Amino acid sequence: MSQAKSRKTLRLGIAGLGTVGAGLVKLIERQAELRLPGRLVVSAVSARSKKRDRGVDISKFRWVDDPVELATADDVDVVVELVGGSDGPAKLTVEAALKAGKAVVTANKALIAEHGIEMAELAERHNAHLLFEAAVGGAIPIVRALRNSLSGMFVNRVSGILNGTCNYILSEMLRTGAAYETVLAEAQRLGYAEADPYLDVSGMDAAHKVLILASIAFGARPDFGEVNVEGVAEIEAMDITLANKFDYRIKLVAEAFRAPNGKEGGGVKCRVAPALVRHDHPLAQINGPLNAVVVEGEPVGRLTFTGPGAGAGPTAAAVMGDLSRLFEGVAMPPLGMPSGDLKPIIAQQEASLDQGCFFIGARLADRSGVFAALTEALAEAGVSIDKLIQDSAGDTGAAPVAIMTHPCPRASVEKALAQVAEMEITVDAPRLIRIETRS
Amino acid sequence: MSQAKSRKTLRLGIAGLGTVGAGLVKLIERQAELRLPGRLVVSAVSARSKKRDRGVDISKFRWVDDPVELATADDVDVVVELVGGSDGPAKLTVEAALKAGKAVVTANKALIAEHGIEMAELAERHNAHLLFEAAVGGAIPIVRALRNSLSGMFVNRVSGILNGTCNYILSEMLRTGAAYETVLAEAQRLGYAEADPYLDVSGMDAAHKVLILASIAFGARPDFGEVNVEGVAEIEAMDITLANKFDYRIKLVAEAFRAPNGKEGGGVKCRVAPALVRHDHPLAQINGPLNAVVVEGEPVGRLTFTGPGAGAGPTAAAVMGDLSRLFEGVAMPPLGMPSGDLKPIIAQQEASLDQGCFFIGARLADRSGVFAALTEALAEAGVSIDKLIQDSAGDTGAAPVAIMTHPCPRASVEKALAQVAEMEITVDAPRLIRIETRS
Repeated sequence: MSQAKSRKTLRLGIAGLGTVGAGLVKLIERQAELRLPGRLVVSAVSARSKKRDRGVDISKFRWVDDPVELATADDVDVVVELVGGSDGPAKLTVEAALKAGKAVVTANKALIAEHGIEMAELAERHNAHLLFEAAVGGAIPIVRALRNSLSGMFVNRVSGILNGTCNYILSEMLRTGAAYETVLAEAQRLGYAEADPYLDVSGMDAAHKVLILASIAFGARPDFGEVNVEGVAEIEAMDITLANKFDYRIKLVAEAFRAPNGKEGGGVKCRVAPALVRHDHPLAQINGPLNAVVVEGEPVGRLTFTGPGAGAGPTAAAVMGDLSRLFEGVAMPPLGMPSGDLKPIIAQQEASLDQGCFFIGARLADRSGVFAALTEALAEAGVSIDKLIQDSAGDTGAAPVAIMTHPCPRASVEKALAQVAEMEITVDAPRLIRIETRS
Repeated sequence: MSQAKSRKTLRLGIAGLGTVGAGLVKLIERQAELRLPGRLVVSAVSARSKKRDRGVDISKFRWVDDPVELATADDVDVVVELVGGSDGPAKLTVEAALKAGKAVVTANKALIAEHGIEMAELAERHNAHLLFEAAVGGAIPIVRALRNSLSGMFVNRVSGILNGTCNYILSEMLRTGAAYETVLAEAQRLGYAEADPYLDVSGMDAAHKVLILASIAFGARPDFGEVNVEGVAEIEAMDITLANKFDYRIKLVAEAFRAPNGKEGGGVKCRVAPALVRHDHPLAQINGPLNAVVVEGEPVGRLTFTGPGAGAGPTAAAVMGDLSRLFEGVAMPPLGMPSGDLKPIIAQQEASLDQGCFFIGARLADRSGVFAALTEALAEAGVSIDKLIQDSAGDTGAAPVAIMTHPCPRASVEKALAQVAEMEITVDAPRLIRIETRS
């Protein structure tokens, strides 16, 4: 337990100079104002385009065309990987760095979620640091909190809003009543959504993040194939508006929890899907591009972490937090415990065993008898209605209807909706959304 | 950067076996279920009474009467100090342990706030760990977040609700309309307040905590004498009720912020006082015995951490988090940077320069002309009224009145209230409470 007496210098190689990379360079230039336990110098940088204007002067850094070459350069102690993507140059760069025994700091959630075990094993074999605070929750220091501070807590559940793009879209659909496509286009204009929004709106990005948290919180092998993923693209403005009349908000909830041993065989369930949360639920208050993570367990109760989940500044600050960790010296297993000790406990939830209360949103055809046919289909499937709103059809020729069910198997609701589809009593595909009944 | 291959064992000496100590022993007994990077064994314990029933079997641990003897025992690697108090046996125990080069984990906010520099210097001189996550915010991992994860962030302000007892009392006064004394007695019955509530209700406990956060966040020498402290004992139920009618909550807000260079000469201001926060302010939502910490700065924006701020389980879990940190080996300066580098920048706020909007609560004597006299006193002092509520005197013979002022110097309000006192137009001592105008 010797104390570091002198301030150390770490030499960085930065691969990827998008907005986060540029934000990081700016922060490094201001490091005298920060509270780092040592000094950071940039030895070399690598990116796709050398010429792009990034608002920072990179001409003073050595330029390397190939990030893999940068990863193994003699004057680089730490490789900062900001290239992104689960495979390709990002993965090659991280692998090369770890094999050379160099520390890696990355913001790459796809890489850690999809190849986390492989990367962790490499890091452990070569005594290298692999840190990825910036991969989850932007500036919220949740990865290190789970890995270290909360390792004395028996975690039962980690849940949250982990994708700011989806949360912004859902917040705006509630605020303005506009359709998904309209709000998405506006989000793209404002820079809250990518030109290709697939990773975000499909729920994949949130799924990457929650799997990383689950792996650390539960000591579980990350297996991305086992995560149930559903996105926000199917949600209609009418669903959000009518849910709001029931005093609920629709949020894209990412969660991982210990399933009770029993029919589903225990293990950790990991899923991302829209859910209705009551207006006074901690996640209901999280609006716009914010992220939030709720950690629940013994003997603590509930901890909530909220902050900006993306953006150049917050993400660069998270990278800086990891860099400051490197001055402390000793590398820990990247996933919190040695990768060989992680248990293969992440298992897909069997839909047939999924129980709860559900929200159904649909537009009923404007002809007599459809309402009775809908409620009859539900009754026949054993689904009992808790609350129902039917709005006026107006001049659209279709009446928005929203139903909240009493507790029942999801399969029963699906059966009823299949019959509804057969009878052609709705003019759209009804939405089936889980209601979060835990306050 | 060598990776710890084998799981290490740390031998603990626990000084103090109150509810937190007993909670810690329970957690240590469950450690196989946790995610610690090594093994914890209890070598010895020390407390005032050997016989007290603590709900855990301590007979298997070596008993040491004198905690200072425990602190230097050969079979103790880590001293866990849960005795409490800024001086006396707690301080002697920590000093003895650090001088012997042993790691210390403590939940003692008074010790760190009042003797932090002395303790940090001792730890640094003897290459010893000194960790105190449990001293602030219960299970919220805010100390380590500020020390490490957020060291790449330029912090401008740390604020929060850091005393669960006061927050419970204020929440209950709002919920029930009952008087301070009634709610305090109930809090004592429920275990939310100590038999001697002075440290909590005076604001001293929150002041200890915010000074610790300020020291780490700003690299400032902790100087407890410079913290402005005001408690909750003077607040009347009518103040809370009328503030609520203005859509504000009264909270005991602890905060530390960089003062702009200027008349007050910059530096870091640290204060604890009741404040009105708008119903949609992040701190307004924190009810009951919860704690919350808000960290604001560049280039991140705002991060909020919420959780149970006290209690055996949360505090013991925070101690476990620190213990897990010890397996990583390298001791860091206890206050985030070497104590010699901390700057003496914490400075009391000069009341004469205090500007803002203020809330005045009082009971007006039930005779004609008093209302005009009150408003005239305010006008004469240059205090302009933003909002005012006067409630009926009913059969109490005194009319509750609440005023929210436009921005003005605090000194002007104080001057007006001095004149009010002279004219004997109120039947009580008016309360003057700052309004938080930042959203």
